[in-house]
Amino acid sequence: MTEPATEPRATAGPRRRRRSVGELVEAARAGDPRAVARLISLVENAAPVLREVAAALVPYTGQAQVLGITGAPGVGKSTCTSALVTTYRRQGLRVGVLAVDPSSPFSGGALLGDRVRMQDHATDPEVFIRSMATRGHLGGLAWATPQAVRVLDAAGCAVILVETVGVGQSEVEVAALADTTLVLLAPGMGDAVQVAKAGLLEVGDIYVVNKADRDGSERVSRDLRHMLALGERPDGAWTPPIVPSVATTGEGIDAVVQAATAHEAHGRETGELTRRRTRRARAEIEALALVDLRRRLDRLPRDRRLDTLTERVLAGELDPYRAADELVAEMVGDSGMP
Amino acid sequence: MTEPATEPRATAGPRRRRRSVGELVEAARAGDPRAVARLISLVENAAPVLREVAAALVPYTGQAQVLGITGAPGVGKSTCTSALVTTYRRQGLRVGVLAVDPSSPFSGGALLGDRVRMQDHATDPEVFIRSMATRGHLGGLAWATPQAVRVLDAAGCAVILVETVGVGQSEVEVAALADTTLVLLAPGMGDAVQVAKAGLLEVGDIYVVNKADRDGSERVSRDLRHMLALGERPDGAWTPPIVPSVATTGEGIDAVVQAATAHEAHGRETGELTRRRTRRARAEIEALALVDLRRRLDRLPRDRRLDTLTERVLAGELDPYRAADELVAEMVGDSGMP
Repeated sequence: MTEPATEPRATAGPRRRRRSVGELVEAARAGDPRAVARLISLVENAAPVLREVAAALVPYTGQAQVLGITGAPGVGKSTCTSALVTTYRRQGLRVGVLAVDPSSPFSGGALLGDRVRMQDHATDPEVFIRSMATRGHLGGLAWATPQAVRVLDAAGCAVILVETVGVGQSEVEVAALADTTLVLLAPGMGDAVQVAKAGLLEVGDIYVVNKADRDGSERVSRDLRHMLALGERPDGAWTPPIVPSVATTGEGIDAVVQAATAHEAHGRETGELTRRRTRRARAEIEALALVDLRRRLDRLPRDRRLDTLTERVLAGELDPYRAADELVAEMVGDSGMP
Repeated sequence: MTEPATEPRATAGPRRRRRSVGELVEAARAGDPRAVARLISLVENAAPVLREVAAALVPYTGQAQVLGITGAPGVGKSTCTSALVTTYRRQGLRVGVLAVDPSSPFSGGALLGDRVRMQDHATDPEVFIRSMATRGHLGGLAWATPQAVRVLDAAGCAVILVETVGVGQSEVEVAALADTTLVLLAPGMGDAVQVAKAGLLEVGDIYVVNKADRDGSERVSRDLRHMLALGERPDGAWTPPIVPSVATTGEGIDAVVQAATAHEAHGRETGELTRRRTRRARAEIEALALVDLRRRLDRLPRDRRLDTLTERVLAGELDPYRAADELVAEMVGDSGMP
């Protein structure tokens, strides 16, 4: 799904011009990988048409199951993702993959074995694979990824796998993004204690102990079980299963898929899925509103009002907190906001 | 300047009760180190009286010269800071030190030699030393340090040294905070190329090549001079001097102080000092306003309006950008803001 710089010129007729957003969304819905790639690029680059894209996509979203895959570097996230794609493809489902892990082979930086394995899927027209830029002034995952998920959702993917590196805050973000969060562990790296330290005991819906053919994998499962048992869960809440796997051979991956399907069914029955999606949409709206407010503040230096406030602070007449109050009051007026 | 948990109980009379903010500011202005420590703690912990503290301080601020000291770990920032304190004390000036470097000996984590040297100043009633917490949900340096600088300014410090580690964004922050920014280099670590990569060629007003008695220090100076020459500066702009020093013996520190004094004089003559302070105050007001706006948004989930918008996004009727627009419109009204 490498995006051509422009629409192909060799073809005659209407394809010679750039397609409109509406045409791109129609083509993406029909499964055109170039249209999907182009829409994700527009979203990722915060193109001027971003709002138009968002508006055109939203009627066709909400169908896909979004699986987040996280864990420490080296536990086998990419291999597991690839094995999951294989399993879902056997079920005849269209699959999307978003790699937000900068060390992911999809992003171009890892073991040849994984890369070759993923190349198989790259020629499958029912698999959309995209690596997301994790940098950018708006903070990568937080801003572009939800929109990229919507593109893949509108493109008819039944399952969207979002792979992210288990470092820093991104786990929490992927948990906020996903319907079902898979936390990967492996003997030696990303063991149960590390998972606990990274705050992943709270976010996992399914724990996958990968490299289960290696020494120490049973100990990882046992430690994890003990730690999970320490947390209190309300009655009727989902109990995260611990699934052993050997992603390189595909062993255990069917069981992971079964667990993911069971988790989704549980979420639908209990209303938890809707609650999660509501939380997610609400957080996204708030985040976008904050970006807008920041932009409005950034524009203020040209405003004489801020100049006056600044002068008064420098003259010792006004402290910066009071000045900020006046600025905000000016912005929000007396609209009775909290 | 270790702060007692409460005001001392052994003393009789009015000191038995906690002093009011007004009393603390009066005591700080008279040079009482306990009052200074208490005010910085109130600022650092974002105490409920933070606004009262800010308002009480502002009339007494704007007198101190704020020197930022930054550079890679190991170049000798703390030793240099200590040597600068000695030099300013010889001039009879009251000095404040804020260490925002978590590896600083003032923060309690470094070489015994430095620590012993700094202990000399710790018993000097005309030197206020404080290490600032760099963590915290509001982002350490950005929020608390400008207020801590105001406390030291109001306490009559003629010079305030703000030492920060040269990693990540903090250099840029310290440059934004300071009237004069000292960038430290040393042979072997923090050489000219590293300084360029860290974006420090743009922010330094004075470059100090420390450990000038070591091999390679002349090369560091030469490389730096070449790189600085590549940047274009407008006519009449300050030309950053390169000053060699051996902070452990105090060699060259007088020249650093002379350069800092010359930079301040140049800033006063050209109006650059006022421009910097204006930019700084403006940025602080905007940052505080943004915190306030974020807080207002964080409170919104209880608002039925956001619930409705979220439901409409989930139903595919509205995209999140449009929902954010409506939310912001609700907040800012039609006040004609940009």
